Amino acid sequence: MTKKRVGIMLSGCGVYDGSEIQEAVFVLLALDRAGAATVFIAPNIEQMHVINHKEGHPSTKETRNVLDESARIARGSIRDAADVMAGDLDALVFPGGFGAAKNLCTFAVDGAKCTVDPQVERLIKAMHAAGKPMGFACIAPAIAAKVLGPVHVQLTIGTDEDTAKALEEMGAKHVNAHVTECVVDEGNKVASAPAYMDGKARPSQVLEGIEKMVAKVLEMAS
Amino acid sequence: MTKKRVGIMLSGCGVYDGSEIQEAVFVLLALDRAGAATVFIAPNIEQMHVINHKEGHPSTKETRNVLDESARIARGSIRDAADVMAGDLDALVFPGGFGAAKNLCTFAVDGAKCTVDPQVERLIKAMHAAGKPMGFACIAPAIAAKVLGPVHVQLTIGTDEDTAKALEEMGAKHVNAHVTECVVDEGNKVASAPAYMDGKARPSQVLEGIEKMVAKVLEMAS
Repeated sequence: MTKKRVGIMLSGCGVYDGSEIQEAVFVLLALDRAGAATVFIAPNIEQMHVINHKEGHPSTKETRNVLDESARIARGSIRDAADVMAGDLDALVFPGGFGAAKNLCTFAVDGAKCTVDPQVERLIKAMHAAGKPMGFACIAPAIAAKVLGPVHVQLTIGTDEDTAKALEEMGAKHVNAHVTECVVDEGNKVASAPAYMDGKARPSQVLEGIEKMVAKVLEMAS
Repeated sequence: MTKKRVGIMLSGCGVYDGSEIQEAVFVLLALDRAGAATVFIAPNIEQMHVINHKEGHPSTKETRNVLDESARIARGSIRDAADVMAGDLDALVFPGGFGAAKNLCTFAVDGAKCTVDPQVERLIKAMHAAGKPMGFACIAPAIAAKVLGPVHVQLTIGTDEDTAKALEEMGAKHVNAHVTECVVDEGNKVASAPAYMDGKARPSQVLEGIEKMVAKVLEMAS
């Protein structure tokens, strides 16, 4: 049996301005345990800003590149999103972190009126059109809601009412879920998990929800 | 039963100039699953340098702070090593990554003649003197070899002969081990695991070795 090829779309390196690192590693672990071949992907763009994660405030003078910073999680092996086609992948998973809502789309700033990075939008549309499954963790479902809102994708971002409302404004159907659960839209082949949208969640709980999401994604890729 | 309090000593954020991110997250996961309370720690010093992880070369103009960058892995919650005493912890674990050999000590540059960051050295000596266990993954055993060489600490960095020889020059006893194994020195209460010293290891194999190391550390903390 050939290994499933699964993309992991990163958005930088660090929860406040990039990918949520623990979620990204848990997605990798879940895919590796399930026997999938993984490929890290990120857009070659500048981050919206750089946050000092110890102090919690933005740096005024620094800029960082999403692809370069994402490569830290990937141990150097990562592909520019612009070079990745739906034909290269059997499935695609988006970890969360503010980078998903600041760099991959503008949801953190613009809410339901957000725009999505052109390469990310192209790849999501192509995967969906090819009937290939996708997974979205934490705040990353905001990207799916924007791109797949017109087909009323069903998603979860946990239980945050304001965020859920914004997703529904974009056309998505939101379902409340606990950190250890995942929500599946079989028709659109999309699975989602709240992960650290519950800021008090324990790492092992976040992994539990992500493992369920990844299992569903791989099941839908069969 | 009170939860064991276990420190995780980080050295930045990214395998080539800081902590190996996946190893750091696996240490966190293993401790969380075992019911321990974790506290991230890092020294408040500048990194030796900044490596572009996509291209593999150092940046000539950029500087980054070890504590600030480590906070990315820790989701912002991290303590300055200078403020941490052995009395605050039941055990202490060091993930690997070049940061352990570039920022926490100078092994990557100076080999067996390396020096160790004063706060890191102080804390290791205090933990050892208090009979509290420590764990070291990947290249981090180089730090233990330098500080605990005089008491002939027994360690593994996997199977790399040159690195093993340098550790023995510092007084340590080296034992070859596979990525899924760990080596234990019961007398000095030190456990070690090769982790990504095997660059071809799969994430799930790295987790397996780290889980064994963490289990031993917690057992010795009882």
